[in-house]
Amino acid sequence: MKKVLVLPGDGIGTEIVAQGVRVLDAVKQKFGLQIETDHALIGGSAIDATGVPLPDETLNKARAADAILLGAVGGPKWDDLDMAVRPEKGLLGIRSQLELFGNLRPAILYPQLADASTLKSEVVSGLDILIVRELTGGIYFGQPRGIRTLENGEREGFNTYVYSESEIERIGRVAFEAAQKRGGKLCSVDKHNVLEVTVLWREVMDRLAPEYPDVELSHMYVDNAAMQLVRAPKQFDVMVTGNMFGDILSDCAAMLTGSIGMLPSASLDANNKGMYEPVHGSAPDIAGQDLANPLATILSVAMMLRYSLNEVAAADAIEQAVSKVLDAGIRTGDIWSEGCEKVGTQAMGDAVVQAL
Amino acid sequence: MKKVLVLPGDGIGTEIVAQGVRVLDAVKQKFGLQIETDHALIGGSAIDATGVPLPDETLNKARAADAILLGAVGGPKWDDLDMAVRPEKGLLGIRSQLELFGNLRPAILYPQLADASTLKSEVVSGLDILIVRELTGGIYFGQPRGIRTLENGEREGFNTYVYSESEIERIGRVAFEAAQKRGGKLCSVDKHNVLEVTVLWREVMDRLAPEYPDVELSHMYVDNAAMQLVRAPKQFDVMVTGNMFGDILSDCAAMLTGSIGMLPSASLDANNKGMYEPVHGSAPDIAGQDLANPLATILSVAMMLRYSLNEVAAADAIEQAVSKVLDAGIRTGDIWSEGCEKVGTQAMGDAVVQAL
Ligand SMILES: CC(C)[C@H](C(=O)O)[C@@H](O)C(=O)O
Ligand SMILES: CC(C)[C@H](C(=O)O)[C@@H](O)C(=O)O
Repeated sequence: MKKVLVLPGDGIGTEIVAQGVRVLDAVKQKFGLQIETDHALIGGSAIDATGVPLPDETLNKARAADAILLGAVGGPKWDDLDMAVRPEKGLLGIRSQLELFGNLRPAILYPQLADASTLKSEVVSGLDILIVRELTGGIYFGQPRGIRTLENGEREGFNTYVYSESEIERIGRVAFEAAQKRGGKLCSVDKHNVLEVTVLWREVMDRLAPEYPDVELSHMYVDNAAMQLVRAPKQFDVMVTGNMFGDILSDCAAMLTGSIGMLPSASLDANNKGMYEPVHGSAPDIAGQDLANPLATILSVAMMLRYSLNEVAAADAIEQAVSKVLDAGIRTGDIWSEGCEKVGTQAMGDAVVQAL
Repeated sequence: MKKVLVLPGDGIGTEIVAQGVRVLDAVKQKFGLQIETDHALIGGSAIDATGVPLPDETLNKARAADAILLGAVGGPKWDDLDMAVRPEKGLLGIRSQLELFGNLRPAILYPQLADASTLKSEVVSGLDILIVRELTGGIYFGQPRGIRTLENGEREGFNTYVYSESEIERIGRVAFEAAQKRGGKLCSVDKHNVLEVTVLWREVMDRLAPEYPDVELSHMYVDNAAMQLVRAPKQFDVMVTGNMFGDILSDCAAMLTGSIGMLPSASLDANNKGMYEPVHGSAPDIAGQDLANPLATILSVAMMLRYSLNEVAAADAIEQAVSKVLDAGIRTGDIWSEGCEKVGTQAMGDAVVQAL
């Protein structure tokens, strides 16, 4: 019996995760999978109920699980809280405690949604990038950090950006292996001309390269990478970078596809145990209105079956069902266009379950 | 007599700066301006000639000047040098030594080049964003920094991200004042949910806001900002952010216009002494072939006349001349499209001088 922990979180999290769980239940039936699900609190809803964004009970259940399905955390309600007890701290805490260092963020243009991108169609049609982001190190977790008072009486904020060779090597291997299974091209993104951390980063990537002779490694400065994503995104296959640059570039890349409501992500540890979540956030402005697109979460369930639960047939089935639903012109508001049928969160879940 | 120091730098720097100087000479004549120019070395060419990227002579001349016109620095020839003696160190050194903390990077879509953008025209037509980037602080200059060996024998790279209240306040004021003169909207970009530095950043921006009641201040996370630049860039008027985020977002914003060869920038100190340079880099692949677009440099001369030399009429004249040249369909390769006349670097300079 495999264990999946479900963490709905905040905002639209509850609604979209509910549809993800329905789809998981449907494939369990269809394929006779031995999977049990449990639920726990994280983020703002955990703060409201227990005072902390990552209760011990949640962390213990997460440790015991084979995979985790997360909705999203955060919202204006908790924006003025101190950083130590904000909803985001729950997310960062679980990533770090479970050593989920390998964050895979695909940016795929769905042919059925080709018009949704703000980029010209020849620039993005067929776009299929995988961003590999280091998720448990870098400036997100570096010590020392804080706000201190200087001798002249004014305050100063400080954070530490830090990566060790072994941290760089393990995310590098995830990226090289992903590139081997895809187009064989890996672009490592750094700021080698300014930051010492990324001098070491580039050195380690170069050292790994000979072990993966079937992968063509290149390097790019982060400012240029942001530019190239807008200029000619199809030049990329797999990109690998640190936590902060990856946060920025993966959101940029996701938005190129025009369908951020469609994109799943995986955060894996060294044994392919993982947390799965949509790339988009908790969208508090549309929460509770049956408006959110559950497909990113449903596709996160597919990723979970593929990477952590080894149920490839069930993963394929979900992805095919989503494709069928899109072919049929069924759309939530975020991806709707003239001539399509507009549906809500639940009805989209219904459609996927039916298409299975 | 005002003094302008010219720093051609590397790659296409020499070629584009030569055209900038020609245009400056032409407006000097036309408007009877009292401006003398001098030249000095910086970057890779300075390394080749003197062993260091920022020779004392250059720095002394820069201190004595009223304004500086820079081409670009860097290239693969110097890529394997140690960080302390790389071409970029010359650029970072002059920014820091002269306290040019206020970097203004406009991203403007020229109506004559509307088709050059990779974004759909309704998304970018009329785009006019100003990015205000802090240029002498943040992780670019933070101490301690380096690569050290840990107890377990492996190495670790580390950099320090740091901003004091006064550093944030002075760049904040530059941005608020710019917003007052433009559309009255200022978006401050941070990572307030993760980094303590930007908690202080946001606090200082909020504290300044009441002094500028005619400016509407908003805050945005940097990952969302990268996304929104692709999704709906026209929502922005002025954006303000730190050195590293500004590096990434300003290149992204510039590329949205499709005419990165057209965009000038200014880096100002507290007294509006400034260094002016194109947003694009040294493009070593096309150097020495009369292919580079000199318009970003020529427009940087206009910015210099406007901000540091107080010669508004001459600045206007240059900008109008560039507009005329574009109206006439004259284009370098980077902005060329069907039906236009393709010209080289020098011929583009000729055209602007003639249009003056
Ligand atoms: C919510 C926030 C802490 C998080 C991050 O910055 O990692 C989010 O932006 C993401 O990319 O998953
Ligand atoms: C060349 C490099 C050091 C520089 C920077 O990162 O500031 C450049 O990218 C820029 O934006 O002017």
